[in-house]
Amino acid sequence: MGRALLTDLYELRMAASFRRRGMDGEATFSLFVRALPPDRGFLVACGLDSCLDFLDGLTVDDDDLDALTTLGLDDVTVDALAGLRFTGDVWAVPEGRVVLAGEPLLEVTAPIAEGQLVETYLLNQLTFATNVASKAARTRVAAEGAALVDFAFRRTQGVEAAMTVARASAMVGYVATSNVEAARRYGLRVAGTMAHSYVGAFDLEDAAFRAFAEDNPGNAIFLVDTYDSRHGVQRAIDVIRELGLGATAGIRLDSGDLAALAAEARTMLDDAGLTDVEIFASGGLDEYAIADLVVAGAPIDAYGVGTNMGVSADAPSLESVYKLVEYDGRPVMKLSTGKATTPGPKQVFRGRAGDVVALRDETPPSDCDALLVPVMRDGHRVHRETLAEARQRFESDLRLLPPEALRLRGSSPPTVTMSARAEALRASVYKKLIGREEPPQV
Amino acid sequence: MGRALLTDLYELRMAASFRRRGMDGEATFSLFVRALPPDRGFLVACGLDSCLDFLDGLTVDDDDLDALTTLGLDDVTVDALAGLRFTGDVWAVPEGRVVLAGEPLLEVTAPIAEGQLVETYLLNQLTFATNVASKAARTRVAAEGAALVDFAFRRTQGVEAAMTVARASAMVGYVATSNVEAARRYGLRVAGTMAHSYVGAFDLEDAAFRAFAEDNPGNAIFLVDTYDSRHGVQRAIDVIRELGLGATAGIRLDSGDLAALAAEARTMLDDAGLTDVEIFASGGLDEYAIADLVVAGAPIDAYGVGTNMGVSADAPSLESVYKLVEYDGRPVMKLSTGKATTPGPKQVFRGRAGDVVALRDETPPSDCDALLVPVMRDGHRVHRETLAEARQRFESDLRLLPPEALRLRGSSPPTVTMSARAEALRASVYKKLIGREEPPQV
Repeated sequence: MGRALLTDLYELRMAASFRRRGMDGEATFSLFVRALPPDRGFLVACGLDSCLDFLDGLTVDDDDLDALTTLGLDDVTVDALAGLRFTGDVWAVPEGRVVLAGEPLLEVTAPIAEGQLVETYLLNQLTFATNVASKAARTRVAAEGAALVDFAFRRTQGVEAAMTVARASAMVGYVATSNVEAARRYGLRVAGTMAHSYVGAFDLEDAAFRAFAEDNPGNAIFLVDTYDSRHGVQRAIDVIRELGLGATAGIRLDSGDLAALAAEARTMLDDAGLTDVEIFASGGLDEYAIADLVVAGAPIDAYGVGTNMGVSADAPSLESVYKLVEYDGRPVMKLSTGKATTPGPKQVFRGRAGDVVALRDETPPSDCDALLVPVMRDGHRVHRETLAEARQRFESDLRLLPPEALRLRGSSPPTVTMSARAEALRASVYKKLIGREEPPQV
Repeated sequence: MGRALLTDLYELRMAASFRRRGMDGEATFSLFVRALPPDRGFLVACGLDSCLDFLDGLTVDDDDLDALTTLGLDDVTVDALAGLRFTGDVWAVPEGRVVLAGEPLLEVTAPIAEGQLVETYLLNQLTFATNVASKAARTRVAAEGAALVDFAFRRTQGVEAAMTVARASAMVGYVATSNVEAARRYGLRVAGTMAHSYVGAFDLEDAAFRAFAEDNPGNAIFLVDTYDSRHGVQRAIDVIRELGLGATAGIRLDSGDLAALAAEARTMLDDAGLTDVEIFASGGLDEYAIADLVVAGAPIDAYGVGTNMGVSADAPSLESVYKLVEYDGRPVMKLSTGKATTPGPKQVFRGRAGDVVALRDETPPSDCDALLVPVMRDGHRVHRETLAEARQRFESDLRLLPPEALRLRGSSPPTVTMSARAEALRASVYKKLIGREEPPQV
């Protein structure tokens, strides 16, 4: 599949028109999230790695041109796209960083047709990966140190989405994934034991438990709710003692009142002298359910988190955009109702006073971190890092977030302000476009 | 990438255990949606084609075994998976059919290890495709005949999701997609013209309009809201008249009060004698927003529908499950709190009195349609059809849905009942498992 066709048709029509007109001036496009979804106090940058893989060596090839002709594009348009390849520079926020609304995640500077062509793919990858990393980070905050395992594969929006979810959740501290291919691809720990079907395939529940433990010594986590969770826990205890499994065994609760069942199971296990046997919980969990279990003091050692995290159920998309902010040295601004943009290439400075969105060429204030770094030069990737590095970066940024930003409901993100120079540029471009001062923003 | 690794680890552990124990009896697994999301009155079956591609020829190969060893699985487990391949039979509801909660979308009958291995992939593909086809079908109902175009690519949960969205929305009547690769892959009509960046790259809005129209005669849809929608409409009218574009031109509104702007734009166009020039609307649309515009009488000819449809924003997942219902001739049932299943392979009979979920071997009542058809035999695909066939099937089923099922809010799905034989089987399995009669279902 030609990578260059992974785009919306209008990108190709615009790119062709720019090239036909000799409009090859450098453009800067800025990709950012307009506003945080309700209850979100922060985002976690994710998805850059696949964007850079996509951009590096991206070319419109002959097969792509043939396909466009077959799709009905006229010859002049198709010819104008021949030879188009990505030669631009990219600045971006590395994966794992905490980012906020209005802060560029990525900026492309390239001849305008090239920057236009790549819009759709970059938005697609950064939007979902950043959204799901942010959602998973919330479960991480809610779990207060309990282990988290990604169980999302069966209900994600496609197989590729499952891979993104496994990688993003590992980046924010999940200890394992159920997704075998993701574990292979990204070097993650893989986890999983039995489903209800395993229990159902045996005549009796304890026969299933015994068989599984014999075949999986060291990995016997008994799913106890196929028929009745309390009876299931007792049968698990019997098998654990009978086979002398000890701390390598565990039980998994997957339905019902998890807080009450976990408390009962803990008591039953402890009374049987199995204080080391851990309790896993799963079944429709999200950050709110996990927080409720933690507040209730449920003795749960690990959570399997699936669907709600994997599709970011309460906010399945982000209001991400990719906007032209400069063309051929001229700052560009869009004024559409409720969707106005700020012109010029940007940088974000993070310091004690909060984040400042500034123009790219501003001198950094002292003791500030600049969030965007160069990641591609002249169409070549110049940034590559391991998932472990991104995970470490997330851990550092997470520690610096104030409690208001970490709240699961009614959270307040840290302050983001515009630098004086960025404000002044915006005011002057507005005045030039409209002929009067910009009214105050509501 | 080995297809067999597109699964959860527990499927492999269970499959290995079954094989080590010589448990090679035939199992039937049933895939269905437990309950419809709020406000949904029906689902549209979708995703079968990719499931059948996956199953046909599915084998655990040597590379897969090596990968599992690398991931830390013990040698006995890995050896037990050697030679595992899919040899089963599959019955399924063809794509495009209306389906309801509790009705099997697909049933696999195979040696139990094989049926277990494929759970994750089948759930993943059928859940998302069916969900998004159902969501798109709701926009179709809301639009009352206006044309719909898929604009979702940039915000779907990955690139594969974008392909699924384009295909599913075409199946339920979308006339085009912005997604170039999806159009190439599935033979769809592709659509798209200009973004705000095109307008911003020119010094003046009318210069951008003129340039685009010159380069795209026959495809000039002017995006009018970059600076001010009313001024934009006037500039579009000027260019349409100047270049004599006539009915091939159009305008697109993408922000603000779409109903009011569409009415004003229509008046302006009509007053200029451009009664044939069409009005397109886009920007955060879903079935609710489209219905409001239709009710308001907004003169909009076509809608571009993106994010909210593409991620099924108000219900981004379905409660789909894949349950063992028979093993080695023995009906199997799960009793977990709130998640009980009904044993035995099934068929769904659709007639005037509504849908009946029956046992597979029941004689169909007269004048009934059987929803499930054989799609694989002995591991080979025996069902293949075009997207046009699925689309036609959807059109037929849509016409038969009652108004209560089509309502966007507070909808009531058609009745689904269990056949007397299915009820009797369930009661007898329950009694055998628990030793008493099943209490009435709440």
